[in-house]
Order: sequence, then structure tokens, then C-alpha cells
Amino acid sequence: MFQTKDPRTELSSLGEFGLIKHIRQHVLLNNESSVCGIGDDAAVIKYAEGKQTVVSTDLLIEGVHFDLTYCPLKHLGYKAVSVNVSDLFAMNASPKQILVSIAVSNRFSLEAIEELYAGMLLACKRYNVDIVGGDTSSSRSGMVISITAIGEADKNDIVYRSGAKPTNLLCVSGDLGAAYLGLQLLEREKKIFLENPNIQPDMEGQDYLLERQLKPEARKDIIKHLREAGVKPTAMIDVSDGLASEVLHLCTESNVGCRLYENKIPIDPAAMQRAQEFNLNPTMCALSGGEDYELLFTVDLKDHEKIKQVKDVTVIGHMTENTEGANLVLTGTEMLTPLTAQGWDALLKKM
Amino acid sequence: MFQTKDPRTELSSLGEFGLIKHIRQHVLLNNESSVCGIGDDAAVIKYAEGKQTVVSTDLLIEGVHFDLTYCPLKHLGYKAVSVNVSDLFAMNASPKQILVSIAVSNRFSLEAIEELYAGMLLACKRYNVDIVGGDTSSSRSGMVISITAIGEADKNDIVYRSGAKPTNLLCVSGDLGAAYLGLQLLEREKKIFLENPNIQPDMEGQDYLLERQLKPEARKDIIKHLREAGVKPTAMIDVSDGLASEVLHLCTESNVGCRLYENKIPIDPAAMQRAQEFNLNPTMCALSGGEDYELLFTVDLKDHEKIKQVKDVTVIGHMTENTEGANLVLTGTEMLTPLTAQGWDALLKKM
Repeated sequence: MFQTKDPRTELSSLGEFGLIKHIRQHVLLNNESSVCGIGDDAAVIKYAEGKQTVVSTDLLIEGVHFDLTYCPLKHLGYKAVSVNVSDLFAMNASPKQILVSIAVSNRFSLEAIEELYAGMLLACKRYNVDIVGGDTSSSRSGMVISITAIGEADKNDIVYRSGAKPTNLLCVSGDLGAAYLGLQLLEREKKIFLENPNIQPDMEGQDYLLERQLKPEARKDIIKHLREAGVKPTAMIDVSDGLASEVLHLCTESNVGCRLYENKIPIDPAAMQRAQEFNLNPTMCALSGGEDYELLFTVDLKDHEKIKQVKDVTVIGHMTENTEGANLVLTGTEMLTPLTAQGWDALLKKM
Repeated sequence: MFQTKDPRTELSSLGEFGLIKHIRQHVLLNNESSVCGIGDDAAVIKYAEGKQTVVSTDLLIEGVHFDLTYCPLKHLGYKAVSVNVSDLFAMNASPKQILVSIAVSNRFSLEAIEELYAGMLLACKRYNVDIVGGDTSSSRSGMVISITAIGEADKNDIVYRSGAKPTNLLCVSGDLGAAYLGLQLLEREKKIFLENPNIQPDMEGQDYLLERQLKPEARKDIIKHLREAGVKPTAMIDVSDGLASEVLHLCTESNVGCRLYENKIPIDPAAMQRAQEFNLNPTMCALSGGEDYELLFTVDLKDHEKIKQVKDVTVIGHMTENTEGANLVLTGTEMLTPLTAQGWDALLKKM
């Protein structure tokens, strides 16, 4: 996308203002609501009368959230935007603008920053958002990315985490656990590579898992399908930390309990197979793996027939009275076991 | 402000959700426009009909923007908010909400994070803004703070950098260069301390310079005074990178030139004296020092009488045709010299 002649242009040769000027040239505003973008003290946004503003922010730290030894910068840029707008979809809002801040050390060239922005701009195009501002800084070690997404919604359309009621159906889009298994795959190959750099990585047939980890999509389509089906979720959240953690968030914020059926949890066959090969429990990968960026939501029982017609959505359980707690119904035994949020750190230790 | 019993509580004992929960308890929403704050996928904001949304973001990196050996965490929190809302005042907008993201390593305790938030909340109170969201992360080395400020303004009130016209008066609030000299003072004492930890720092009588560096104020008061005086600036920017750099931004964005009079630049006597003691040129400290967070703006010539009445504002020059360039009129000689933006990095090397 960016045209440069030199294969490595030092950022120091541009300076901060030079870099901002360079980025600004490639950032166009497409949304009517983007009144003023990069180049002033602040961006200016004007949403239609009656709309509310919805805003969310994510911080991505090298070595914590991403590993550049196997994550290409273009993918990283795409993912950084995806995961951020995903939060706005989880409010049933439409993302319109983002602010992008980056801190980089001198090990990054201008071309590397261009790759990152190329990925971000690709995601911006897909989700129809404009980059309207941000900040650039030097960093003493790794790369830091901070993205703030801003969007709009009608007051009555906004879906909070707190609206779930007992008997509501618990639904999730897509499938779960694949992003985590993609990460395990990449980590394994990195380890092999570090031990013997001559061995070629063995990634054949793992496209789906890798794509789920490296280039996740925010589920804009699900929001559209739900609207078309005339279903407004009662509560919603996106699955970033694993299904268990997100279900517990909905339960806590809505003051309800739930029954989640293990045998209903959608897991892709590729993830299932890979989990077995890694000697991991596929259900645990879905519950605690995270980074799926699927939408988890509850709908009124009366919408059961409607929700069954919505493509790529699975009913995985139902909400209960708070006193019943949040439980997983184990396959086969029908036994209840309390849901616990471990996150993937704990998962690695436990499994 | 936060009540904890243990003098050092490890963040690992809370986890990310525990930390968010802890922070959330201490963050209250005061603005009517803050519909939903911390605790959902995104914050929800509702400004009055007809208002535009103004948004700005800053990234602060330990070792680049702040040095915790001499910057207390409470001051850092206060400063992080001040510098961010300053950008909104520079648009003639009213900040209402902020999002705060932090990344910290395990060398920070919960008490340290509380100190940081105590400072931020103090600034929030002063500027009447609510913390409505953010992100928390671990960091592999230093602390990272990312703040996004969101505010509102009437469309006709917003002041861009691009509105300056030839013959407009160039004005600045407060005084310049003191924050830079405060930094030099702290750096000197740090160096002495590292060489001999038994020597007590010699900061007597330097309160003003230290406060300008460690606890800068955004000039909300100037915005108010200008409004009361019936003066709307034609262009405005805040002085974060030094007067020269900001004047050049106004000239570039407005496509005008300017004459800045050296003898009009407001410099506090304490800064003047300290510059001499450090063998620095006080004008250079004002031009390239930065971090003053004063407002630099242009007003129509017809507002000359009105602006003279506004407290703590100095007319330092006027705008010209673009072809005349941006020049500094040197004291005594009346010679013109082209303004150049060096920033404080260059300043340290040159002086």
C-alpha cells in the first residue's frame, strides 16, 4: 500500500512529526461522522441526532499480547483493529472511528510501521471505520499499540452485559477454542525453530487454526443477521478471555445463574483434532482458551424459533436464577460442575 | 483515598479482573453525559443534541515520558490526565470523559497503582471528567499509560489549528520554559544522587519550576476567560513540544507566516534565573523546551482591546502572509531569524 524506495528507512530520519505526516497521507476519512481526523489537537466527530456514543480501548504489549517472531506486522495491525471494534459490536453498536497510538523502538523501520498500518487500514476498510487520530512515541524496548474505538448506536439498540434474565437462552456465534490451539501450534513451532533453525515449520492443514489466532474477525455479520431476524439480545459480550470467563461476566452483571451444556459448545473439527494431538481437552480450550472474538449473548425464550434460523449461531444453554449459580452440564453424565474462569495462563499450567 | 491494610499487595494476588473491580469501586460518574462507565465491553456517552464529540489520546511510556526515580506516581497520574484534557481545551471543547489504560510489571504493587489513580482522580475532579473505561495489562518492563479524553463542543465553538489569518494576533497563556528547567533540575539532582546517594537534593526555592514539570495544569481557566471576554480564537493549539514547534504547526495548518517577538515571550523570573544558572538561553528554553501545556492561539485584530483585558494572556506576535515565513524577531537587533522546531532532544544536544 505505501510506496517507498528504500528497503529500510530509519524512523529517526523522519522524526515523530515526519512519521505522523507520512501516516496521515495514507489515512482517508470515509464516514460522514468523521468531521476532523489526524492533524489537530483532537479529532472531531458528529453523530446523527439521537445517537449515543460508544467507546472502548485496548492496550497491546509486545511479549504479552503478541510475539513478532511468528505474528506478521500486517496481521498484527488487522487483529489490533478487529479485537477493538469487536467490543463495540458486543454493545450492538456500529464502530465508526478509531484512534491509534503506537510506541516503537529503533529496531522498527518505517517499512515495518507501514506494514502494521497496512493491516490496520485493511481492517478499517472491512469494518468501515476511519483512523481519526492517535499518538506516536519511542519505546525503550518492545512495541506498544493502544487503540480506542468509537461508534454510535440508538439508545434502545445498545445491549449491555447486565440485561440477561432467568430462562433467557445463552447463544454464541461461530466456534470456540481454535484461536488458542493456533497459538499452541505457533508456540510449538517457535520452540522447535529456536532449538534447530534448519527445521521447516510443519503447519500443513492448520490454516483455520492459524487464521483464528493471527487474523481474527469481529462478528459484524452476526449483528446484522440478528437485526434482520428481528432479535435483540438481552445481554451481550465478546469472547476475548474464554467462554467461561465471559459467561461469568454476564451472570455477575445480570445477577443471574446459568446452565451451559458441554455438548452444545461449538468446536471446529480442526480444533477438536488438534486438541487431541496436543493431549488437551477440547472443552477446556473453548472454556478458557480465549481470543475467539465470537459474540456471546442471551435472548428471550420467545425468540427461540427466530434464533434457530440465524446462521452461525448456537444455543449453548440458558440462564437461571442467581441462586442456582453458573454451571457446566457435563456431557454423558449430566452432572453439574461450577464454571470457573481460569484464562489461558492458568490453562497452560493446569493442562 | 484508597483504603488498604497491607503496605504491599502484589497485583498477582488480584489478577486483572480483581484489579479492574478494585479500580471500579473508586471511580464514580459525575457527568450526566456518562451513561455507562467501567464494567461493560464499551462505555456509553450521550451528549446534548447538536454537540459534536471531540476526542484525543496520549501514550506515556516510562523512560521516555516519565522517570519514576523523581516523578511520584500521584503526580504522574495527575499529569497524565492534565496533558490529555489540555488537547481538548486546545479545541475550545469541554472534556467530559476519559479512558485510562495501564500496563505494569510485577515491580508495581496495588498500592502503587492506587497512588497513580489517586492522582488521576484528583485531576478528574479538577477538570470535571469521569473515568468511564480503559484496559489493564501486564508489561514486561516499564509502565505504560494510555489516556483517551472525550468531550463535547458546539460546532461553532470548535477552534482548529487551521483558522489563523494574516494580521491575526498571536497570543499565549501563562509563561513558558519553566517545565523544561524543572526537568533539568530533576535530572541534575538524579545524577548527583546516583553518584553519591548521601547528598540531599538541593531544590530550595524551586517550587514553581518543579510544579510546572511534575504537576502541570491544563488551562481550563483561559478557555473560560476568553468566553467571558467574548473572544473566540481563530486557531489554537496547546504547547506540549515547545513554542517554536507549535507556532510552526499553526502556520502550516493555517497556511500563514508569523512574526514572533522574542522580547514578548513570557518567561517567569524563576525560570529566567535558573536558565542563567544552567548557562541556558531562556528564549531557547521557551521555544524548544516543551511540556508547558499553555494555550497558544490567534485572535482577530479587532479583538485586540478585548484580549488585553484577559488575565494571564500575552500577545507575542502576529500572523503574516505565508510567503513571509515564520520568523522570530530578535530582541535589541530587530533582526528576523527563521523559527525552527527542535524539540527538547535537540535542545539538549545544541545548548
